[in-house]
Amino acid sequence: MGKTRIEAFSDGVVAIIITIMVLELRAPHGSELDDLLPLAPTFLTYILSFIYVGVYWNNHHHLFHVVQRIGGSVLWANLHLLFWLSLVPFVTRWMGENHFTPWPTALYGVVLAMAAIAYYLLTRALLAQHGENAKLAAALGRDVKGKLSVVAYLFAIALSFVLPAVSLAIYAIVALVWLIPDRRIEHVIER
Amino acid sequence: MGKTRIEAFSDGVVAIIITIMVLELRAPHGSELDDLLPLAPTFLTYILSFIYVGVYWNNHHHLFHVVQRIGGSVLWANLHLLFWLSLVPFVTRWMGENHFTPWPTALYGVVLAMAAIAYYLLTRALLAQHGENAKLAAALGRDVKGKLSVVAYLFAIALSFVLPAVSLAIYAIVALVWLIPDRRIEHVIER
Amino acid sequence: MGKTRIEAFSDGVVAIIITIMVLELRAPHGSELDDLLPLAPTFLTYILSFIYVGVYWNNHHHLFHVVQRIGGSVLWANLHLLFWLSLVPFVTRWMGENHFTPWPTALYGVVLAMAAIAYYLLTRALLAQHGENAKLAAALGRDVKGKLSVVAYLFAIALSFVLPAVSLAIYAIVALVWLIPDRRIEHVIER
Amino acid sequence: MGKTRIEAFSDGVVAIIITIMVLELRAPHGSELDDLLPLAPTFLTYILSFIYVGVYWNNHHHLFHVVQRIGGSVLWANLHLLFWLSLVPFVTRWMGENHFTPWPTALYGVVLAMAAIAYYLLTRALLAQHGENAKLAAALGRDVKGKLSVVAYLFAIALSFVLPAVSLAIYAIVALVWLIPDRRIEHVIER
Repeated sequence: MGKTRIEAFSDGVVAIIITIMVLELRAPHGSELDDLLPLAPTFLTYILSFIYVGVYWNNHHHLFHVVQRIGGSVLWANLHLLFWLSLVPFVTRWMGENHFTPWPTALYGVVLAMAAIAYYLLTRALLAQHGENAKLAAALGRDVKGKLSVVAYLFAIALSFVLPAVSLAIYAIVALVWLIPDRRIEHVIER
Repeated sequence: MGKTRIEAFSDGVVAIIITIMVLELRAPHGSELDDLLPLAPTFLTYILSFIYVGVYWNNHHHLFHVVQRIGGSVLWANLHLLFWLSLVPFVTRWMGENHFTPWPTALYGVVLAMAAIAYYLLTRALLAQHGENAKLAAALGRDVKGKLSVVAYLFAIALSFVLPAVSLAIYAIVALVWLIPDRRIEHVIER
Repeated sequence: MGKTRIEAFSDGVVAIIITIMVLELRAPHGSELDDLLPLAPTFLTYILSFIYVGVYWNNHHHLFHVVQRIGGSVLWANLHLLFWLSLVPFVTRWMGENHFTPWPTALYGVVLAMAAIAYYLLTRALLAQHGENAKLAAALGRDVKGKLSVVAYLFAIALSFVLPAVSLAIYAIVALVWLIPDRRIEHVIER
Repeated sequence: MGKTRIEAFSDGVVAIIITIMVLELRAPHGSELDDLLPLAPTFLTYILSFIYVGVYWNNHHHLFHVVQRIGGSVLWANLHLLFWLSLVPFVTRWMGENHFTPWPTALYGVVLAMAAIAYYLLTRALLAQHGENAKLAAALGRDVKGKLSVVAYLFAIALSFVLPAVSLAIYAIVALVWLIPDRRIEHVIER
């Protein structure tokens, strides 16, 4: 099966997720600069989530670039990833509106961790169809960054109940680490 | 006529339907775990609807894969299917917010049944253009699963007024049955 | 310039317009059948608007099928059409919520008329780039149906202030006339 | 890397941005013409923002038309542009609802200026990958219009606190100047 439609559908869903988050930035009633201040936590969370969803789109783009065949298991693994990403606007709102209190901060991490695990499962489903010795396997390597991210999320979730500000810093640092595009796959493509 | 644009348009509409449902998961005002509890029915319905819309996208993807020509009747049969799918967010919300009371549970089933019938009509419109002896006819076969689903929906609709919990279980079981991708079409493609 | 992206962008905008209208169908708080009744006018208007937007997508699909080149003027004529279509959800809501009172019914017609004029201007912009003797000119013909539609809309707008129910009937009849796909273009493609 | 998916994703995000703005045009409760009047500032701002987002889509379309290769830096420069464009619905609402008071008018200009700078950075990222002597460099030229626009925005932002109406006029004039498609790139394509 071709990969065009699964790419197009994923692009559509991710484009909507990244854009509807801005609907939660409700314009304040007053028209002074001070009226914008209460929006600051929501706005900062919006930026963080925008980067995360952007990172997923970027990695998804790179991942499917080295892929040729798509089977039923990949379709479902992909929908599973999109499901967890679709919850990002919800946890963004909850964390932003509650000014980074413990539970919302923890749940934000849970959704990030589940999305990371879903992405990992997607790479496994693709590998199962392409064989361990394919270009894809070389491109993914041991995926140290992916595995460390999940560890970081789990650590941040636990920390949410003690120091939510540190959890938030961890989410931000992991996002920045991922901002650097996946050179491994780019190198394989160049070769 | 080519099938690229009808696929792209359907992908767009389905991507929006599957994503805007999450807008109904309104972040609660409190920031405790207990504040999330009232959202549980809406969240469970969201998962169910996400799977259903995902199933339709998957089957739509498989269906158009074995199709070559698109005529006017297919365009309208496809829009008719998208119309019923577009009502999924509405019935999802109504059933979730009313905690699976009779009428919302029944209406959810009506929309599922109408979508299934619309999908059937779409396959008929495609068959009419490709001839009964085409690859498509072989792939669709007698469509026992599709027909049994409609029977299950009708049964669940009637049951909504007596045992809505059982209706809900039927919707969930049918969704899980469909999670298994349509091997018939995949087999025809492989051959 | 290629036409792929203008088609993809138009498909995206039209897919969003046709889908976000359902967000206006707000689930009622009660869970009885009677609680759905107040939604009836909004639901009927939703069906009417769904058909109209579907008709525009269908005709847009047919139109660009016989087109080869895209220039600056076509890009803007297309955005102009999308602008008027983007107002359909707004007038749908206003007319539906106000139970077909004069002004909302008239404004609904104004948006339909402006969209029809915008579509006509788009065909002119395309003709200007392809020459009067092209396949496109043959396919469009004298466009009697398009011109009569505008006349019908103008008549219905005037009538809104006296007999809004008749205006609504006119909108519905014009929609049904357009449900029949544009055989003229299909004939030219077949030849 | 191919450019198809980055184009498709950008088309999706821009299509959503341009369409969800209309959700802010909330249908009034009354059904008289007078009930529409309070919406006039929001509607005018909607038209202005629709033109701006349309201009960005048009220029993006032209820009990627003369581009062959896409690397990691371009993916991020493009997401950066989409981020600022995603804030257009927010500032549109704030400015429209507050009837062009100083701060909202200034913030509208800030988002326009940041989007213009992001677009400039995107052209730099593309130039860095294609070399200064490529078709792209010839097409972009010295980009006088782009640089003058940023100057105009900065001037309008400062003026917002004294004469917001003049700032608004500047935004409108810049939009109209950009309505004229980028002939430079079209000329290079024709050659």
